[in-house]
Amino acid sequence: MARLRDLGEFEAIRRLIARADVPGEADGVRVGPGDDAAIVRPEPGRDLVVTTDAFAAGRHWLDEWIDPEALGARLVRANVSDVAAMAARPRWATLAMGLTPDRDDAWVGAVESGVVAALAADGARLVGGNLTATAGEEWLALTLLGDARGDHAWLRSGARPGDLVVATGHPGRAGAAIALIRALGEGARDAAWRPLLEAWRAPASRVDLARALAAGRAVTAAIDVSDGLAGDLSRLADASGLGVRLERRGFPADDVLEAAARKLGADAFALRLGPSDDYELLLAVDPGRADVAAVIAREAGVPWSVLGRFIESPGVLEWVDEDGVRRPIPKDGFDHFR
Amino acid sequence: MARLRDLGEFEAIRRLIARADVPGEADGVRVGPGDDAAIVRPEPGRDLVVTTDAFAAGRHWLDEWIDPEALGARLVRANVSDVAAMAARPRWATLAMGLTPDRDDAWVGAVESGVVAALAADGARLVGGNLTATAGEEWLALTLLGDARGDHAWLRSGARPGDLVVATGHPGRAGAAIALIRALGEGARDAAWRPLLEAWRAPASRVDLARALAAGRAVTAAIDVSDGLAGDLSRLADASGLGVRLERRGFPADDVLEAAARKLGADAFALRLGPSDDYELLLAVDPGRADVAAVIAREAGVPWSVLGRFIESPGVLEWVDEDGVRRPIPKDGFDHFR
Repeated sequence: MARLRDLGEFEAIRRLIARADVPGEADGVRVGPGDDAAIVRPEPGRDLVVTTDAFAAGRHWLDEWIDPEALGARLVRANVSDVAAMAARPRWATLAMGLTPDRDDAWVGAVESGVVAALAADGARLVGGNLTATAGEEWLALTLLGDARGDHAWLRSGARPGDLVVATGHPGRAGAAIALIRALGEGARDAAWRPLLEAWRAPASRVDLARALAAGRAVTAAIDVSDGLAGDLSRLADASGLGVRLERRGFPADDVLEAAARKLGADAFALRLGPSDDYELLLAVDPGRADVAAVIAREAGVPWSVLGRFIESPGVLEWVDEDGVRRPIPKDGFDHFR
Repeated sequence: MARLRDLGEFEAIRRLIARADVPGEADGVRVGPGDDAAIVRPEPGRDLVVTTDAFAAGRHWLDEWIDPEALGARLVRANVSDVAAMAARPRWATLAMGLTPDRDDAWVGAVESGVVAALAADGARLVGGNLTATAGEEWLALTLLGDARGDHAWLRSGARPGDLVVATGHPGRAGAAIALIRALGEGARDAAWRPLLEAWRAPASRVDLARALAAGRAVTAAIDVSDGLAGDLSRLADASGLGVRLERRGFPADDVLEAAARKLGADAFALRLGPSDDYELLLAVDPGRADVAAVIAREAGVPWSVLGRFIESPGVLEWVDEDGVRRPIPKDGFDHFR
C-alpha cells in the first residue's frame, strides 16, 4: 500500500493523470489533464479552458491572517493565474464550499463577495456553487472557465532551447510571508513586512498582461507559479523536454525579501526559489521578441525579470553563481503530502 | 451573527445566490445560480451547462459502505443528474479532492477510475483536477460541463397549472438505505435490502431519457432529486410560481421500501417524500404529451410515475388521501446544516 504521504503530491498527481487516459480530439478535448488548465473545444475555432483549484483551512488560509473578502479574491486569483498561463480570458466560475455549521453567514457572504469582485475585475461571473457541511477542516474549491483563441493558447510544452526564462512579480514573496508568520507570529504584522504579506494575501491578476503578450507573439510556453519557482520551472522545462540555466543576477532586487531572509536566518536565493504560491507567471520568451515583451510588461506596470535560459539538457535545473560556477537547484516545489 | 446552523442550508444558499447578483446576457450568462445548473453561452446558439456537486466523508459516503469505484461513479451521477435535469449532454469534468496523507493511493486511483468510467458511460471525459491535503474530513468536488441545445434546456421555472408531476425511479430508496444503515448497522447488508442499498450506491444516469424526452417536447420544467421528493418538488413548484397536489396512488409500488419502513417503524409515504439523494428526475409534463412521454420512458426501461399535478396555488404542497381529504406535505428536504 502506497499512502499519499509516501508518494508525495506530484507523484500522486502524475498517477492520477496517467490513469485519466489521454483523450483525443473526438471528445472535443484538445489538452487534457497535466497542463495549467484543460482546453476543450465545444465547436471548431472556439476553445474553452477549464481549471480548478482548492484551498484548505489551516493550509491555504488562516482566519487570523486574511479577511474573508481577500480569501475569496485569492482563491479566484489562484484559478485566474492558471487561465492567464494559457493566455485565456476568464469567463465563468462555480464555487464549492465545505463549511462548519458554526461558521458565521456574514463571513461566508464576504468570501463570496470577494470571489464575485475578483471575477468581475477580469470580466468573469460566478454562475453556480455548492455548499456542504463539514465537521473537519473547511475548504473552498473554485472551477473557472475561460475563453481561449483557437491555437493561440500557451502550453507548458512549447519552450525551445535558447528561449528566455522570465518571471513576473517578485518570486518567493508569498512563501516568505508564510515563513514570517510561522517564525514571528504577531510580529509578522510589522509594517516592514507588509509587501510580503500583501503578495501572499492579494496576488495580482496577470490576465491583461498575458493577453497583450499573446498578441505580441513573444511567449512560447507558460506556467503559473503556484508551488514555487524551482518546482514550477522544473515542470515547465520537463514538459518542454529541456533544462534550465538561471543567472543569479537576473533576479529582481527585493530588499524586503532579503530583510526577511536575514530575520529568518534563511538564504534569500533559497527563499526566491522555494515553496511559494505567488500566482505569478513563469514564461519561456522568444529571444527575438524579448524587447517587445519587456515593453509590454513595462507598459502594464508588471515587474518583469529575465532569470536565465532554457537549455538542451532535459532534467537539468542549475544556476550560475558569481564565480561562473554552475550549481544544481533542488526541485523543491511545495509538496502538500509530505 | 447568524451561523449556518441557524440559517439552514437552503437559506444560506438563497443568500449566496442573492449576493451573486443576476448576470445579464452581456456576460454570456443565460441562467445564473439557482437552477440545477448554470447555462453559459460561449457564442450564439451554443449553450453550455455548468454544475458542481461535492461529497464530504461521513456525510455523503462511508468507506465501509461504498467501494471507491462506486463512490467516484456516484459523485459523477450526482452531477450528471443536474445536467440531465437541464436536458443537456455531459461533456467534460474536473475533479478536486481533499484527502488525508494516510489515504492509500490505490483507493484514490479507484475513485478516479470510477469517475472516468461513469463519465465515459455518458460520453464525457475527465480533463483536470486538483489534489490537496486535509487534516480533517475528506471531500470530493466534481464540476461538470455539458452541451445544451440553444433554448431547449429545461428550467425549473417552466411548469404550468395542470402539468403532471412525474418522478423517475423509486422515490426515497436512497434515504431508506441510509436509514437502514443507521438503524441496523451490519444488518443492512442483508440481501433483502439490496435494491435500496444499490439505489443509494449506484444511481442510474437519466441523460439518455432526458434527451429523448426533450426531443419529444413533453417536459415543461425539471429538477433532479438530490435532497428528497418533498424538498425538491417544492423548489420546482416555487420556481414556477405554482403549488402541487399529489395523489398517493400515483406512487409506484415498492415492496422493499415498504418492508424497510416496517423494519424502521417509519411511515412508507414519509420515506418516499423525505430526505433522499436519489439523483432521479422530477418533471413537469405537458398532459397533452404525457402518453408520448410515458412511451419514451418505457422504451428506455425507466420507472415512470405520475404523482399528481401542478396547481395555481403558490406555496401549496399537498396530497389527497384515500378518503379524498387534502393534507399538507412538510417541505422537509435534507438540510445539511441543521
